[in-house]
Amino acid sequence: MTVQQAFERLRKIQQELFVYNYAMNIIHYDADTVAPPASYVCRGEVLSAFTEKEYEITTGDEMKSIVAFLIEHKDELDGVQKREVELLNKEAEYVSSIPKDEYVAFTSLLNEASVVWHNAKANNDFESFRPFLEKIVDYNRRFAKYYKPDKDPYDTLLDQYEEGLNKEQADNFFNTLKEHIVPLLKKVTEAPQPDTSFLHKHYPKEKQAELSEYVMAVMGIDKQRCILGTTEHPFTTNVCTSDVRITTHYYEDDLASAFYSTVHEGGHALYELGVDPAYEKTPLTGGVSMGIHECQSRFFENLIGRSRAFIGFVFPKMKELFPEQLEGVTAEDFYKAVNKAQPSLIRTEADELTYALHVLIRYEIEKELIAERLEVKDVPQVWNAKYKEYLGVDVPDDTHGVLQDSHWSGGSIGYFPSYALGSAYGAQIFAKMNSEMDVYGEVASGNLAKVEGWLRENIFRHGSRYSPKTLFESCVGSSFDPIFFTDYLENKFSDIYGLDK
Amino acid sequence: MTVQQAFERLRKIQQELFVYNYAMNIIHYDADTVAPPASYVCRGEVLSAFTEKEYEITTGDEMKSIVAFLIEHKDELDGVQKREVELLNKEAEYVSSIPKDEYVAFTSLLNEASVVWHNAKANNDFESFRPFLEKIVDYNRRFAKYYKPDKDPYDTLLDQYEEGLNKEQADNFFNTLKEHIVPLLKKVTEAPQPDTSFLHKHYPKEKQAELSEYVMAVMGIDKQRCILGTTEHPFTTNVCTSDVRITTHYYEDDLASAFYSTVHEGGHALYELGVDPAYEKTPLTGGVSMGIHECQSRFFENLIGRSRAFIGFVFPKMKELFPEQLEGVTAEDFYKAVNKAQPSLIRTEADELTYALHVLIRYEIEKELIAERLEVKDVPQVWNAKYKEYLGVDVPDDTHGVLQDSHWSGGSIGYFPSYALGSAYGAQIFAKMNSEMDVYGEVASGNLAKVEGWLRENIFRHGSRYSPKTLFESCVGSSFDPIFFTDYLENKFSDIYGLDK
Repeated sequence: MTVQQAFERLRKIQQELFVYNYAMNIIHYDADTVAPPASYVCRGEVLSAFTEKEYEITTGDEMKSIVAFLIEHKDELDGVQKREVELLNKEAEYVSSIPKDEYVAFTSLLNEASVVWHNAKANNDFESFRPFLEKIVDYNRRFAKYYKPDKDPYDTLLDQYEEGLNKEQADNFFNTLKEHIVPLLKKVTEAPQPDTSFLHKHYPKEKQAELSEYVMAVMGIDKQRCILGTTEHPFTTNVCTSDVRITTHYYEDDLASAFYSTVHEGGHALYELGVDPAYEKTPLTGGVSMGIHECQSRFFENLIGRSRAFIGFVFPKMKELFPEQLEGVTAEDFYKAVNKAQPSLIRTEADELTYALHVLIRYEIEKELIAERLEVKDVPQVWNAKYKEYLGVDVPDDTHGVLQDSHWSGGSIGYFPSYALGSAYGAQIFAKMNSEMDVYGEVASGNLAKVEGWLRENIFRHGSRYSPKTLFESCVGSSFDPIFFTDYLENKFSDIYGLDK
Repeated sequence: MTVQQAFERLRKIQQELFVYNYAMNIIHYDADTVAPPASYVCRGEVLSAFTEKEYEITTGDEMKSIVAFLIEHKDELDGVQKREVELLNKEAEYVSSIPKDEYVAFTSLLNEASVVWHNAKANNDFESFRPFLEKIVDYNRRFAKYYKPDKDPYDTLLDQYEEGLNKEQADNFFNTLKEHIVPLLKKVTEAPQPDTSFLHKHYPKEKQAELSEYVMAVMGIDKQRCILGTTEHPFTTNVCTSDVRITTHYYEDDLASAFYSTVHEGGHALYELGVDPAYEKTPLTGGVSMGIHECQSRFFENLIGRSRAFIGFVFPKMKELFPEQLEGVTAEDFYKAVNKAQPSLIRTEADELTYALHVLIRYEIEKELIAERLEVKDVPQVWNAKYKEYLGVDVPDDTHGVLQDSHWSGGSIGYFPSYALGSAYGAQIFAKMNSEMDVYGEVASGNLAKVEGWLRENIFRHGSRYSPKTLFESCVGSSFDPIFFTDYLENKFSDIYGLDK
């Protein structure tokens, strides 16, 4: 076998994996958007069967022998090939470490857990979801130990969402954020608050949908390859580089919610749509980590979307769509309203300033759960206590507390920190971008092509070609420093709230 | 191997087939409802791969040896088992007769043809669709010949949609219809026409959606297992007995269109939802033929939905939803308006009386195409000439002519006659049902449970357990006679139009 022959054989295997992956993506999207409630039993059988196929291919002799051969011949590989083999090997080692029946049973569990969680949230019934969460925590801990018996399991989980991340780094990161955010938030909370009442007039869904389509166009999202749907919980699905789906949720008494969901998910979509199509059907396709992904989405949502420049450009369109509701309201009023910072209950609705504290709470709970220092049955109580401690708010019920997010029911433990990390990455990327162009000057003219082009060149197109650390550092030209983010927050909110810094 | 062991092995194979079928159903549904335009290339690869898997399983040695064994031991099988083996054998013989590469290529062609047809219809561009239709006709003819070399290929195609149907029977059937419908239509056309203007006021989509949800509830459709979506062309997808999807299309200047689409597709859904779940994952599940299927949908749409009794019950709800638009309109006005009979261009919008003539035109064209007496390039011209001859209407363009239906682009040739057949089956079934209960008395009270229960007992639950002929005859207690249908039409339209019979 030559290296070329090995890659040819690999392409065939990857084509097969792609087929199952594609089907599971569509089936999941269908489940999350339209499938009737009773359909989950059949769906579970199908997802289990395909997971089994994927397991068999990933851990199969053919895959193993090719990967082993390529590792042996790594001196003959170029950088792209080396990274591909490295990622394949990592995936094969991870999957092989888990017994097949457990691997498949986890898929089946998650299919049911998703239905149970939806109902639990709707009915404020943590108790019905509890046994599922117990199993999910247990699977996560077990899988992490199978894969890296000698490593702390939560470190292993963090690494799955952000290659290279560990608890020590995350602790330091969150401590830095806390140090800056807590005193800033105190000052902000004591200052006079902007008026947000006009955001909560009646905004008909169809007009909001028009606004979402408009902002997708402003962002330059290719509608031949990307559609906008509606779901209870907005998300992005990446099927392939010619098929990306984002969703939003329209509340008729809230102008900002769906708009910023669309911008956020649109950021995810731009990333996926911008990956080099040559990487399709290899581990190099798709965003490299959740941190880098959330960086793109939150970059568009906040650094761009909640900027004076962007709002100045899109506000006339809002006035055109909602002339009565926005009568007498200026772009500056809107800017201040959508940047109002105050402790709240719901992560996805939190402002830029308090957002990281919501994430911190989840991070701390996950750490304790995986370390077996906290039992699932006690999570609601701990959740509520932490919301009181860090944000000063009383959680009225589990629907607005521990049941609010879909991540745990989806099997993801270790994902949350990437949201805060992504926000912080974004501020440093913005600084770098701004050293090369007048970012807000571009945005103010409604032309996002240069911003998107810069991100495509420096981030999007690379997909998973580089580790998140390598990608980030080569993008900004230095190592990660959360001080860019805290500086950004201090400047922005001091300005909005008229504080002395 | 014992018979029991053979069935156990069969269940495993059928489970595997179910998985691929499920995935393809969801992927098709996704394609028809939301998938972004550029996604069709990836989708084609996946559908082809799964079609190949299905081909391999269906024609594989394991399947063949089990079916052969069971045929050998048919004296030990009960009726249900015999039918199952018979259907499996038929399917295996059909698929095996076609070379794998052609079988897979046809799936791939249809995936592309569907996209091309949508664009062709939107742009009135038959020429772009022509090469696809040529290939589709060719594949159909070729596959029919592979399967039954000695049989007329159009007879083979008819049999695929309506087991046992052939051209001779279809010719006789259509001749009977023509004999009665053409003179009746002439009288109707000459009589004063009911006012339909109020149907074309402005009816907002959301209110129409509420009406559709309402009528689904009236029909007793289980919303845990069935959802309503919206598409350009309404259809029903049967994923499994706990997952059936129907779609409708809202036109804001037409109250009746979406309403009757929902009722029609709702009839299909009730059939699928009513099949005995014990048949799931065997060839016995799902409606037995397109004729019996269209019989259920058109039964609910017309015999029930366009009856005075049903309209009398639902009209107050319409008035409640549309008080201004329907001011001064009575249930009787609505009844007459939605039963207005007149030659028209579009099959799906045709009234009960002219509907069969639309089908006849397609039937005659398909027959000629498969017999190679007509070339695809000449179809638009023949289509238009037949619309002039049978319906007296001028077809203004191919969008409103030969490009209007999705069936051919979906690969289906031989499907259309089942619409007319289904309509005629329905009238005879109604007569039988009415001999056992006061159907319109039930319907007038808004209680469809007895009607649905009767159909479930006599038709739905049997799935594909019996051939359409056996099922129909055991249901009505006699053989099929289209005179029930023509009598029904004569009575109904003579009454509405005040004609002497």
